[in-house]
Amino acid sequence: MINKLIEKIKKTNAPIVAGLDPMLSYVPEHILKQSYEQYGETLEGAADAVWQFNKGIIDSIYDLIPAVKPQAAMYEQFGVEGLKAFQKTVDYCHEKDLVVIGDVKRGDIGSTSAAYAAGHLGKVRIGSRTCSAFNEDFATVNPYLGSDGIQPFVDVCKEEKKGLFILVKTSNPSSGEFQDRLIDGRPLYEYVGEKVAEWGAQHMGDDYSYIGAVVGATYPEAGKIMRRLMPKAYILVPGYGAQGGKGADLVHYFNEDGLGAIVNSSRGIIAAYKQKQYAHFSPENYADAARAAVLDMAADINGALQAV
Amino acid sequence: MINKLIEKIKKTNAPIVAGLDPMLSYVPEHILKQSYEQYGETLEGAADAVWQFNKGIIDSIYDLIPAVKPQAAMYEQFGVEGLKAFQKTVDYCHEKDLVVIGDVKRGDIGSTSAAYAAGHLGKVRIGSRTCSAFNEDFATVNPYLGSDGIQPFVDVCKEEKKGLFILVKTSNPSSGEFQDRLIDGRPLYEYVGEKVAEWGAQHMGDDYSYIGAVVGATYPEAGKIMRRLMPKAYILVPGYGAQGGKGADLVHYFNEDGLGAIVNSSRGIIAAYKQKQYAHFSPENYADAARAAVLDMAADINGALQAV
Repeated sequence: MINKLIEKIKKTNAPIVAGLDPMLSYVPEHILKQSYEQYGETLEGAADAVWQFNKGIIDSIYDLIPAVKPQAAMYEQFGVEGLKAFQKTVDYCHEKDLVVIGDVKRGDIGSTSAAYAAGHLGKVRIGSRTCSAFNEDFATVNPYLGSDGIQPFVDVCKEEKKGLFILVKTSNPSSGEFQDRLIDGRPLYEYVGEKVAEWGAQHMGDDYSYIGAVVGATYPEAGKIMRRLMPKAYILVPGYGAQGGKGADLVHYFNEDGLGAIVNSSRGIIAAYKQKQYAHFSPENYADAARAAVLDMAADINGALQAV
Repeated sequence: MINKLIEKIKKTNAPIVAGLDPMLSYVPEHILKQSYEQYGETLEGAADAVWQFNKGIIDSIYDLIPAVKPQAAMYEQFGVEGLKAFQKTVDYCHEKDLVVIGDVKRGDIGSTSAAYAAGHLGKVRIGSRTCSAFNEDFATVNPYLGSDGIQPFVDVCKEEKKGLFILVKTSNPSSGEFQDRLIDGRPLYEYVGEKVAEWGAQHMGDDYSYIGAVVGATYPEAGKIMRRLMPKAYILVPGYGAQGGKGADLVHYFNEDGLGAIVNSSRGIIAAYKQKQYAHFSPENYADAARAAVLDMAADINGALQAV
């Protein structure tokens, strides 16, 4: 799957993930109205609105980007109905041949991590059959519990040729509270990054490992260091756009081959129509605004990479 | 909800949580057969088996214990169908007046953490209505992302009078990989514990905070230190029984008032019938075996507490 991701990045010339993190406040009135009319102002109605919204976005941008990253929380808030919309979104993205990164940030131990891995990336044995559930291509994982928490995910990834992005240095303002704590003079996240490289060595694709890392766009110095410490790990970079990251900040997350990083934007793409810059798109044309935002983001990042 | 938990612990005289973490391999043949006959060897069939299994356990032990802890991964592995079983389990436990700790180990940032908190502990606004989804009473949360990740959960907890158990020192063998790293001579988990105390001060119940911590039974020395560092935090203690913890190891997790800790056992209770000690219960009587295991566990812990 890492090979497919890289192939698609090259083909689209866009190291971009669209974060499908639909808050209800992003969904235009005409979609909300239709879903509420059909299902009421209920969890089902909200989930339908989110799914219709996503479908519009996906139809509009699937040819421009290699991958999407649905954020599980935005679906889980609507309970079982929301998770049906999550599943529909994953399946529909696969129909469009997009690589799907499940932003689930799961993390537990032993058989519990194995169950999360099975549910999101693998298969479960049920009687004499094997079934798959959510079936994303990559999942984000939290490393706080150490190798016991990660290895069951890696094992499933090896079996399924799927991958992980492990949280190393997150994009939020307080990420340093624990991640930057100095241990023998080096921040904790460097030790986590070294483990990512170690875990990743078990499961290599052609040029990069199936086991990647999350390093926020908002900490370019960390990006520079982590690029060196984990040369074979793909870096998923959140924090572009709405959180403050710009193309020029991102060049050091890439390797000299122009690969090695994929940049996420969520709000910046899916709620583009709400920004001044794209206000000439009406809410009815929210999906066209998303397309324009993807094109601008690709130009920004490629421009910065070419300027190096 | 922390007051209710403590009241129920006193009433049952059992500082015990039953971990509802049903692997399919725990479910007796007669239940599997019936569910597969009705729904096939499908995700739906597996989810039904898990729900029927849980119902039997709950009916058998609800009067003996204050709380249950369903482990989300064990449901999520069966996708949407599994999460329906999770929801049914939570609702049924509430009917039986049990406190429900959703073992979800979620953790993200800002509006994403807020969405998880809304889905598991709070309410979501949908048009002119507010709806609740999974509606547990407590949730477990991962601290790796720092205050930005925790505060949205705390805010929802304040509104809903609900609570959290934040991972501090987990019970697994490799928990030390990052959690034990020394920062100015003290392990990372102590810094996390100090933050738990700080976050907890915002949301106090009568004697204890709504914001508790997870400290594994397998690290009694850590339990002793954390008890002192977070005097007002309830400690959820996993790792009893199958993972190796015993009542005698647990006394230092409690305060002098005999409160302050609640000990989880999962396999040790729900799959008791598979253990030598309870082998005289046939698989058909798995729920009676669970009841016997709860009674033995309460005697072990209370015996150890009285011996102090």
